[in-house]
Amino acid sequence: MSLENELLSVTCTAPVNIALIKYWGKRDEEKILPLNPSLSITLDVDDLRTKTTVVASKHFDRDRLWLNGKEHDISSKRMQTCITKLRQGAGDLRSDDGTLLIAKEEWKHYRFHIISENNFPTAAGLASSASGLACFVYSISQLLCFKETFPGELTTIARQGSGSACRSLLGGFVLWECGIAPDGTDSIAKQMDTGDKWKHLRIVILIVNDQQKKTSSTAGMQTSVQTSDLLKFRSKEVVPVQLSRMRDAIKEEDFTTLATITMQESNQFHACCLDTFPPIFYLTDVSKEIIQFVHDYNAKCGGTFVAYTFDAGPNAVLLTQDENLDKLVASLYQRFGFFPVTREGVTSSVCESPQSDQIIRSIVTKIGEGPRVLAKSIDHEESLATKDGKPKFTI
Amino acid sequence: MSLENELLSVTCTAPVNIALIKYWGKRDEEKILPLNPSLSITLDVDDLRTKTTVVASKHFDRDRLWLNGKEHDISSKRMQTCITKLRQGAGDLRSDDGTLLIAKEEWKHYRFHIISENNFPTAAGLASSASGLACFVYSISQLLCFKETFPGELTTIARQGSGSACRSLLGGFVLWECGIAPDGTDSIAKQMDTGDKWKHLRIVILIVNDQQKKTSSTAGMQTSVQTSDLLKFRSKEVVPVQLSRMRDAIKEEDFTTLATITMQESNQFHACCLDTFPPIFYLTDVSKEIIQFVHDYNAKCGGTFVAYTFDAGPNAVLLTQDENLDKLVASLYQRFGFFPVTREGVTSSVCESPQSDQIIRSIVTKIGEGPRVLAKSIDHEESLATKDGKPKFTI
Repeated sequence: MSLENELLSVTCTAPVNIALIKYWGKRDEEKILPLNPSLSITLDVDDLRTKTTVVASKHFDRDRLWLNGKEHDISSKRMQTCITKLRQGAGDLRSDDGTLLIAKEEWKHYRFHIISENNFPTAAGLASSASGLACFVYSISQLLCFKETFPGELTTIARQGSGSACRSLLGGFVLWECGIAPDGTDSIAKQMDTGDKWKHLRIVILIVNDQQKKTSSTAGMQTSVQTSDLLKFRSKEVVPVQLSRMRDAIKEEDFTTLATITMQESNQFHACCLDTFPPIFYLTDVSKEIIQFVHDYNAKCGGTFVAYTFDAGPNAVLLTQDENLDKLVASLYQRFGFFPVTREGVTSSVCESPQSDQIIRSIVTKIGEGPRVLAKSIDHEESLATKDGKPKFTI
Repeated sequence: MSLENELLSVTCTAPVNIALIKYWGKRDEEKILPLNPSLSITLDVDDLRTKTTVVASKHFDRDRLWLNGKEHDISSKRMQTCITKLRQGAGDLRSDDGTLLIAKEEWKHYRFHIISENNFPTAAGLASSASGLACFVYSISQLLCFKETFPGELTTIARQGSGSACRSLLGGFVLWECGIAPDGTDSIAKQMDTGDKWKHLRIVILIVNDQQKKTSSTAGMQTSVQTSDLLKFRSKEVVPVQLSRMRDAIKEEDFTTLATITMQESNQFHACCLDTFPPIFYLTDVSKEIIQFVHDYNAKCGGTFVAYTFDAGPNAVLLTQDENLDKLVASLYQRFGFFPVTREGVTSSVCESPQSDQIIRSIVTKIGEGPRVLAKSIDHEESLATKDGKPKFTI
């Protein structure tokens, strides 16, 4: 059997992750080594995901990349680092009966067409680079029969594509270790908890109007590291304590503590953005209203039933428990006006009310698992590629 | 000569002060001892001031207080502390030729009518409690011929009325020392620099629309002390360094450094508010636009020509130098639309443009001196009291 003229292909999905203990600031820009460990929750890949088809052929003249139907430059240093390291770790491709189809040293002759799509709007402000780079690395690793030389090596490759992408390679609660090695080999992501006992957790993403100019997180955290005294202190002194408390809360299924630390972490991250010079603002007046709403809601209910967390943008991610979800959504409608909610793939009827220019829409999801292989053939219905290895859809 | 039936009176003014190194958080709530030293600039009393007339008589049945034409309760613990301590330090009242008119032990039979007015709108968000309490303490001290038992004692009394009031008892650049004594006797305000070489400095107060619910600074700083790890670090580790740099900048007439530290301090104070749990927000989207404007302006001009600072509210205080003022105001108009500007007592024509709902008005002032005695007689035109010791104007 010869694969000489065949197009090899794999199609995978990777999930979005939301940091509860925030990553902000690198101690090594090139290797993307963080100032502090971070902890995230992986979102259900059935609701939000990047899907990537990688096609490999000796006959392609170069590596190419399409994102959401549009060709993008693949020559960025970060993506090239990932591809190089994946090729280095490539393994032999064998058929089910063990026959050698492609020897590992042959991969260097193959070029890739990488076709990637997100099922969530860019406006969601979700870190599409995390699920995107995770899916990029995972898909290529699957195709190349990548062999890790140490546990977590694949996460160190994703990390070098986009820091938080390493956390999207695992499901449940994921810890991205800070590490101490200068080469970054110990700055890996690992599952802290499967999240099996947290299936009742609901994650409500509130997408708000965003007109402000945005500071990219790469540039933002660089300025923060250079100028914020508070960030240095936070990384060294506060995060380890909060991480340890969060770990216990996850283990003990203690929603109140998990929720409280999540809010404190979000606030402290944005405080460090404000302590940056010139200051960086990601929270808008609407974001602040949502924060106020959550504290009011919890006070009224006499406990901590909802938590918020915000990344490098104004959109809110709320955490609550299943039993509280309907009440929360009703309360949100009362305060912010009606907005469509997507829940288990179904969107509530879209009849935007005039006062709903604050929260545009919402997605309800839950904790989920890591990347998946959907198809190993270019002909599969899940494949994003045509038979000649081009995107099925382009814009 | 007997003063038995005469009304004794004194009328004084006290200035507003703006903190460049911020005061946020007490280490002793009762004595109002701060977590860290702070540094302020005293504003010209000709532009912004509290004016207070104190009338004393044996025949008044109780102490009474009128603020801006309306009677207020004077029984608050803080005001009572000030009055008690001022009575304790009272001295003999003598005529110009040295004749004893009232012996110090006689003062305990006198009651006060205190009539106070600010010449700036409450909407200015200026800490009216600072100039107000400073004027309260200064006026009574003048009337009672108060004798300090140690230098700065009067500032320790004002401090116990309202922390930052101690800084309004002096002109120029004023340092409020943190102190270490548990009784607070070393937490005094003192002039760090007369400001004589800073007469070219212009202070532009931008009053913005404010619709948000406000957290009082007393309650806010209490919650910050209890919950913000960043505030503790800031007080201990950052403020001493910034204060020392600011001291040098003032001495060396280094506007760039003074401006930079002022902005960093403002940002760090608001960062600590955000790190408070629940978080406190004083900056609105308009405040943030002003911050962005200042950074853009400085970048465009290729230097640090303007600084901003914000206290516990959304109004901005800008610092610039005289030669740059017209250009700055023109630039502000261009970005925020026209708004009236009060400069040396004269307000620019008030023709509010439709787009000027962001900055409502502005006051331009400069560095100034401490409290002044305007009149020592109730009949003086500056007196706020009628001949029988009541306010001339009430609402």
